Amino acid sequence: VSSKDGVARAVSVAPGEQPGVRAALASAGIGVVPVGESTRGLVWMGTHDPAGLAAALNNAPLLEWVQLPSAGSDDFVSAGILNPKITWTSAKGAFSRPVAEHALALTLAILRHFPERSRATTWGKPMGRSLYGLNVVIVGAGGIAQELIRLLAPFGTHVTVVRRQSKHLSGAAESVCTDQLGEVLTTADVVVLAAALTPSTQALIGETELQQMPRSAVLVNVARGGLVDLEALTRAVQDGAIAGAALDVTDPEPLPTGHALWKLPQVLITPHSADTWDMIKPLLDARIVANATHFDRGEHLEGVIDPAIGY
Amino acid sequence: VSSKDGVARAVSVAPGEQPGVRAALASAGIGVVPVGESTRGLVWMGTHDPAGLAAALNNAPLLEWVQLPSAGSDDFVSAGILNPKITWTSAKGAFSRPVAEHALALTLAILRHFPERSRATTWGKPMGRSLYGLNVVIVGAGGIAQELIRLLAPFGTHVTVVRRQSKHLSGAAESVCTDQLGEVLTTADVVVLAAALTPSTQALIGETELQQMPRSAVLVNVARGGLVDLEALTRAVQDGAIAGAALDVTDPEPLPTGHALWKLPQVLITPHSADTWDMIKPLLDARIVANATHFDRGEHLEGVIDPAIGY
Repeated sequence: VSSKDGVARAVSVAPGEQPGVRAALASAGIGVVPVGESTRGLVWMGTHDPAGLAAALNNAPLLEWVQLPSAGSDDFVSAGILNPKITWTSAKGAFSRPVAEHALALTLAILRHFPERSRATTWGKPMGRSLYGLNVVIVGAGGIAQELIRLLAPFGTHVTVVRRQSKHLSGAAESVCTDQLGEVLTTADVVVLAAALTPSTQALIGETELQQMPRSAVLVNVARGGLVDLEALTRAVQDGAIAGAALDVTDPEPLPTGHALWKLPQVLITPHSADTWDMIKPLLDARIVANATHFDRGEHLEGVIDPAIGY
Repeated sequence: VSSKDGVARAVSVAPGEQPGVRAALASAGIGVVPVGESTRGLVWMGTHDPAGLAAALNNAPLLEWVQLPSAGSDDFVSAGILNPKITWTSAKGAFSRPVAEHALALTLAILRHFPERSRATTWGKPMGRSLYGLNVVIVGAGGIAQELIRLLAPFGTHVTVVRRQSKHLSGAAESVCTDQLGEVLTTADVVVLAAALTPSTQALIGETELQQMPRSAVLVNVARGGLVDLEALTRAVQDGAIAGAALDVTDPEPLPTGHALWKLPQVLITPHSADTWDMIKPLLDARIVANATHFDRGEHLEGVIDPAIGY
């Protein structure tokens, strides 16, 4: 491993052997060194293991860059180990395709009553809503939102993006700031959550927001369970304040056995399976190889985390 | 009602009052006369009622055109009442959007194991297949196939259309004739049935075809139940010859209570609800008004049935 300025920018991979990642790096001509004094870049493959990462950091005093394995890094951020002297990158944006696909799949499934159909053991009456031309509110403006807008385009939906900053997101009919969330919820047919979990998005959708949504609207969450007040959501579906919900993530997660949401007619729960390991493995390998190559050449990295905003 | 050549091309609407259709026609400036001697065009709103239509035909000796209410007219065709001296039109093509949407919704639901998720009462393990880049075989080349190709485009799927004639369908990667069905099934990931039911498509998918499909493939039927040998399909799913099936139509229909398909893990049944009445009403009204206007002006009609091929 060599860099433009002549300093060996050796990359380590941990925890464990991670033969797949090593093979991907090797095929791009990038060697791997054990975590230690020579480690300048670290590919960290342990999800939900801030303690393990903290130990590795202690063993690599010259570390310049760490690649984290997930799209969302809230568990590492909240553990307070994102040393600002190091460049941190995540997989954010890399898994957008399968997650946006899952968001569309959940949306169509809820609009067309698939939970009830799946549980039925006898022919029923035709029901359902078509997605064509509906008002879709997407909370978040990252890779998932952008990809979902692409998937929704053939349906002629009216997409409103709700984001932290006021910049317009290409492909959306309109982009508004988070302080206008309540306003755009009042005319939403579908609300899709695709935002990072940060202190300011924690329980973003609570009783107030659910009451602002039309009774015919549905909620889809493919981001983080903590974005939604789960008990408020349960009551909203039970009371008919909204028409249904499809959740790939919950807080607490896993959703406890026996929770009322499991049996509500218009609720679909998937077990954080929007992006399965089989789906994301090639996408994560590509992100790792790209960033290791960029790091080696002193180039701009992809998916750099901003510690100030937490993703 | 007046036509270019001065002959009053009066339109009748039956059975029943059909106030919605009358209002739509009135708003286009087209009057309605009772079924009788002055009837030149008939808008027939009775689905699955060939006997009722036969009686109406007897009361309208000067009839030139009949508009049927469904996309598929196999029940009227098989009843033998499509007098070739009359021009017959159906709603074929008019309901393509909701039906293609349903096909995509069923496809995503089966690939992502939504039937099992919907029935679960506890958190499971991530499973599922992404649609991106898969081989999709669409049987049929009408409006539904064309619209489905448009909805699939963002997923970068490889679409093979199987059709009666050899003409290429725009948007598909390839188009083949029905005699090559067996060949293209061997590399299919998803097989979507969107063809008319005719004597030559009856039980098009039977034991042989199901065995030709890869064990990982899934079958989706949004057309007519008779296209599939239901008992062969049941065995194929039970034996793992294919990975799953999603059916909006069955033969017999309704699918009998107690049928094994209701409880198979990787099977989703929807009760002929791809295009609900609420979804299609505005689309059917538009087709009726367009054709009544064309008829009045002596223009080409939309959705003309070819009695020789049966749709």
